[in-house]
Amino acid sequence: MKKKTSAIVVIGNEILSGRTQDANINFIAKAMTKKGIDLTEVRVVPDVETLVVEAVDLMRSRYDYVFTTGGIGPTHDDITAECIAKVFNVPIELNKQAHQSLLDYYKDPEKLNDARIKMAMLPVGAKLIKNPVTGAPGFQIENVYVMAGVPNIMRSMLENILPSLEGGIVLHSISVATNLVESKIAGLLGDTQAAYEGEIDIGSYPTFYEGIPKVSAVIRGADKALVEKIASDLQGNFKAMGGSILEVVEL
Amino acid sequence: MKKKTSAIVVIGNEILSGRTQDANINFIAKAMTKKGIDLTEVRVVPDVETLVVEAVDLMRSRYDYVFTTGGIGPTHDDITAECIAKVFNVPIELNKQAHQSLLDYYKDPEKLNDARIKMAMLPVGAKLIKNPVTGAPGFQIENVYVMAGVPNIMRSMLENILPSLEGGIVLHSISVATNLVESKIAGLLGDTQAAYEGEIDIGSYPTFYEGIPKVSAVIRGADKALVEKIASDLQGNFKAMGGSILEVVEL
Repeated sequence: MKKKTSAIVVIGNEILSGRTQDANINFIAKAMTKKGIDLTEVRVVPDVETLVVEAVDLMRSRYDYVFTTGGIGPTHDDITAECIAKVFNVPIELNKQAHQSLLDYYKDPEKLNDARIKMAMLPVGAKLIKNPVTGAPGFQIENVYVMAGVPNIMRSMLENILPSLEGGIVLHSISVATNLVESKIAGLLGDTQAAYEGEIDIGSYPTFYEGIPKVSAVIRGADKALVEKIASDLQGNFKAMGGSILEVVEL
Repeated sequence: MKKKTSAIVVIGNEILSGRTQDANINFIAKAMTKKGIDLTEVRVVPDVETLVVEAVDLMRSRYDYVFTTGGIGPTHDDITAECIAKVFNVPIELNKQAHQSLLDYYKDPEKLNDARIKMAMLPVGAKLIKNPVTGAPGFQIENVYVMAGVPNIMRSMLENILPSLEGGIVLHSISVATNLVESKIAGLLGDTQAAYEGEIDIGSYPTFYEGIPKVSAVIRGADKALVEKIASDLQGNFKAMGGSILEVVEL
């Protein structure tokens, strides 16, 4: 079975200006890993039609699933629905189901002003993604899932999407952290990677914890027993090289 | 004067697997805003040569400055230097200055094992970016700046780069937060944007603070007095619409 792939397109000037620290990429990334789907690329683009259309169009042709976040609210800078319509070369229409969802949420039809109605103007063929928080839905066309940028809304939309995605073999990961410096263990990690090429994937992530260097070797693979064996071997090797084991975490 | 543009290419499986929450994009984004340079695109790609080369090559042809983070350490999964060499179609060589920097850092030449030497193997023509933390330098070729992924090292490398970049007109931003819902103020914000098109840029960012919806209208422009005037007008309008002003922040 070929592993399914995915990409995220984050739409929003506020991430690019530094005003907002993105919180959605990491959340979606973790959900994909848990589901056994590769997250292969992420793009952050501004609220500029040409760049949004280009990114979504390329990602949808290249990967199995594309998630967008941001730009589906009621204001003038919310252009995602129009962009997605351009990508699929379909017009925008008042989506009856989305309109009803907004009516249900706002109760009083008088409250449904033009700005709010805009949130029900979706590309023809859009299937709704439920938004339990504010009533304004996300939507799906083919392999593109359009979600809100506000993290708690995005999360509940993603929860609604996940069961419908075809997952893959879930990888097991163990992170072994040592106080040895990265250059000291580089040869060992490279040799181990070479010996198990195709079966496991070893990453090396140096950090500083309170000024003291620390390296986490992350072993990832479908075969849980093999991942555990290599994690255990590495711990033995690190100790033999005079290092301490700071932490062993199953991810 | 045409505004300078920039892009970031984040290189790292650990961001895409969700293991690590990226902290570099937001830091670079803020630095660019402060310097008056547009950050126009961000791409996150895995440690896969074809994808790294494709992203850097496109970004460098499209934008004035390209910053990469990640993949310049001593281990087998650190492939950024090779990728950048491919982008510029030059070979990799032992960079004498980088070698010296490592010697200075490690003091004892015997400590400079193969893995560490790898960190001095740079594309021909690379100019070094000083790394005061561990001695392993970043480097620059033309408009591409290659930095470490570890946040504190990336930050000190960026500090060394910033003075050499050509900045632009610094934009002034004021954020006005109100308890009015976004759809209620959408018309006002759209009209205001239309009236000052080209002079200012208005963004609208809904959030939930302890479950209560809140919207920040961010006014951004080169003319500080105009930004202040519009921020003040919006506050008046929000109050006239029955809203409260939760916060006014100069960004």
